[in-house]
Amino acid sequence: MPLGSDKADVRMRGFPKLASVAEASNKFHQQVRIERLQAETVPTLQTLGRVLAEDIVSQRDVPPFNRSAVDGYALQAQDTFGCSQTNPVVLQVVGSSSIGTMPSVTAGRQQAVRIATGAPIPEGCDAVVMLEFAEVTQIGKIEVYRPVTPGENVSLQGEDVRKGDLILRSGMLVKSQDVGIMAALNMHEVKVTRRPRVGVLSTGDELVDLGGDLSDGKIVDSNRPTILSMVVSAGGQPVDLGIAADEEGEIAGKLSLGIADCDIVLASGGTSVGERDLLPSVVNSLGSPGVIVHGVAMRPGRPVALGALQGKPVILLPGFPVAAMIAFDVFVHPVMNRLLGVVASLPSPYLRARALRRVASSLGNRTFARVIVRRLGGEYVFEPLRTSGSGIISSMVRASGMVTIPENKEGIEEGEIVEVMLMRPVEG
Amino acid sequence: MPLGSDKADVRMRGFPKLASVAEASNKFHQQVRIERLQAETVPTLQTLGRVLAEDIVSQRDVPPFNRSAVDGYALQAQDTFGCSQTNPVVLQVVGSSSIGTMPSVTAGRQQAVRIATGAPIPEGCDAVVMLEFAEVTQIGKIEVYRPVTPGENVSLQGEDVRKGDLILRSGMLVKSQDVGIMAALNMHEVKVTRRPRVGVLSTGDELVDLGGDLSDGKIVDSNRPTILSMVVSAGGQPVDLGIAADEEGEIAGKLSLGIADCDIVLASGGTSVGERDLLPSVVNSLGSPGVIVHGVAMRPGRPVALGALQGKPVILLPGFPVAAMIAFDVFVHPVMNRLLGVVASLPSPYLRARALRRVASSLGNRTFARVIVRRLGGEYVFEPLRTSGSGIISSMVRASGMVTIPENKEGIEEGEIVEVMLMRPVEG
Repeated sequence: MPLGSDKADVRMRGFPKLASVAEASNKFHQQVRIERLQAETVPTLQTLGRVLAEDIVSQRDVPPFNRSAVDGYALQAQDTFGCSQTNPVVLQVVGSSSIGTMPSVTAGRQQAVRIATGAPIPEGCDAVVMLEFAEVTQIGKIEVYRPVTPGENVSLQGEDVRKGDLILRSGMLVKSQDVGIMAALNMHEVKVTRRPRVGVLSTGDELVDLGGDLSDGKIVDSNRPTILSMVVSAGGQPVDLGIAADEEGEIAGKLSLGIADCDIVLASGGTSVGERDLLPSVVNSLGSPGVIVHGVAMRPGRPVALGALQGKPVILLPGFPVAAMIAFDVFVHPVMNRLLGVVASLPSPYLRARALRRVASSLGNRTFARVIVRRLGGEYVFEPLRTSGSGIISSMVRASGMVTIPENKEGIEEGEIVEVMLMRPVEG
Repeated sequence: MPLGSDKADVRMRGFPKLASVAEASNKFHQQVRIERLQAETVPTLQTLGRVLAEDIVSQRDVPPFNRSAVDGYALQAQDTFGCSQTNPVVLQVVGSSSIGTMPSVTAGRQQAVRIATGAPIPEGCDAVVMLEFAEVTQIGKIEVYRPVTPGENVSLQGEDVRKGDLILRSGMLVKSQDVGIMAALNMHEVKVTRRPRVGVLSTGDELVDLGGDLSDGKIVDSNRPTILSMVVSAGGQPVDLGIAADEEGEIAGKLSLGIADCDIVLASGGTSVGERDLLPSVVNSLGSPGVIVHGVAMRPGRPVALGALQGKPVILLPGFPVAAMIAFDVFVHPVMNRLLGVVASLPSPYLRARALRRVASSLGNRTFARVIVRRLGGEYVFEPLRTSGSGIISSMVRASGMVTIPENKEGIEEGEIVEVMLMRPVEG
């Protein structure tokens, strides 16, 4: 790209009034209606990490029948009332109930049925006495030494899940135990939200693909691998749109391909101002509404732009790698959650820690500070990374935590205790 | 399986002295030496979530050259000393430096080079003045209105990463930003630990596969889908060993296949005591050391058994689904981390919450209570699930948190504030 024209430079000088993070998000969502994506039916065994697109209502009782919770003898509880070690009651063993078969035997008064844990309770029985409180004294007879109450050691049909129970709600993220309960309910397939297809484009004449030739001032495009990975972590389907040179036609072409093929398109600029200007104007040239917000009062991440084409979100991430990652977390992840219909997310792990040094911030901007957290004398402490510009990718790799400083707060004082989001295990 | 023989029943009556969780783990690890699995080389772009098997040491500087952090003019700082809005200094523009090319131009005294953000600093220059503090007044000349200090607006070669820097350590879990920095270092492949192959077997005559016929006392095997999912979440390669009937030969056959093919074998029993006895004895019949610990002082999870065959861990999980999941977390996950060489894991999200009701525990046992967490009047509160036996899989699905009560503590009193591990987003 030739160096920006004076017009472009002027444009770049100004973000005359930056929207706050909240204002930017509100303005974007007022103009872009983000509908949940369609559902797709997948085998239950492949739903881990997916988002449910239907309420899961049980079509059956779990357990499906009254079953024994112990190994022992099923019987009528009343027959054991008053028995004891010294005064056992003698019952006739009329059969057995094993797991995996419905028993045909029926027990009457003074009768018992040998039963295994999990086996169905035979008709006529209302309790189970554990093996250790009964003894076979002669063939076909047992002595019972301890009374049981009706229902004792019986797992009642439906006590875990009752037919008609709402088990999981649409919008929940499927966890291992959810796979388990859907299996227990014998549901072999389930509706989940289709994964959003997220196109990721990098722009910049200086960029080459990983493994490329770095002579002559070229640098590897590291934003695209980073952002593609973040898309995967957020439950999306990454679509690699490659690198566009700093040329309007090429950018427009690749953005258009992305819009046609994806549910969201992300583009991150190179490191040039002219380039940052090029992307918004190309987006505006491709349709309406184009760019809705450009420039947000956040550090890093200020040059982010939020827009839409053909009803699909187009988010322009800053070229600086740290700024791109933080802008992804702040703006792209919530949009992906809306497309997925996620009702609520588990928070990241946080801990309260004391600042060992002052952390600067810029009043009026939401500031995201990368910090190192460690244990010191029974408490958690943190300090900001010394090298932490938005171009310093190592600051995201070396940091074990992130502190968000709100717009109306001017830094964190030494000794202040704040919430730190953990990015890595704490050392020490 | 026929109902257990009296011998088996007697064996089951006793876990005469249960090992504590710590004792069980120590005894197991004293007898089974768990070596980290081999490394494999994978493309950097596919390393997200994998465990590094090598230290990542930078082979280059990032940035690879001194570059401009702004759009402006590269120059010699000393030429600007003392200039001001009213007393600008006039410099000759001798060329430009764009991103993606090494500049051939050299600047001398009273000279300047137009430069874009990210472009290499030309020889002879030591600072950059931002565009807004310079103005083109005549062709080939600029006036500079503000002095800069040497190094100002210059990103120095290696300021992000220096050649020889240790960037990431072996045993770290690869995150999105790590993919990014490895890309920035132009490393197109990396060594990660091979994923542990974890075989998962269910046993029980009553079990059928998901989608199977549930008439006649059969139930769906829900443990296997649950545990296979947990293996995936823990970074393993799940190997489905299917269902074995309660028959020694069949169990031995499937366990042996698992041992031959996997790095760990997990088997979960059905719901019968006889069966639980069958698995340990089959494991013992297959070699040495066989079962090392059987029965652990934990609720749920008591019948768990830890052992090894051919040097590979064999862990027998309880048949009850909640007990199986908790025993997995307590014993299997740490073993997988050792196989992977994970040095430290990010903790799950925790919060401090107040008990709305007493939570019972069994003194001497480590107790894992499933609870519902919510916000109430500005604080977090929780209460235990009312239906929460180890056979009640819905208790793991309905719970939003888990509280671990140590062996030496007898329950949690109403009003007590404790740490709750979050399993689901908090409602309200």
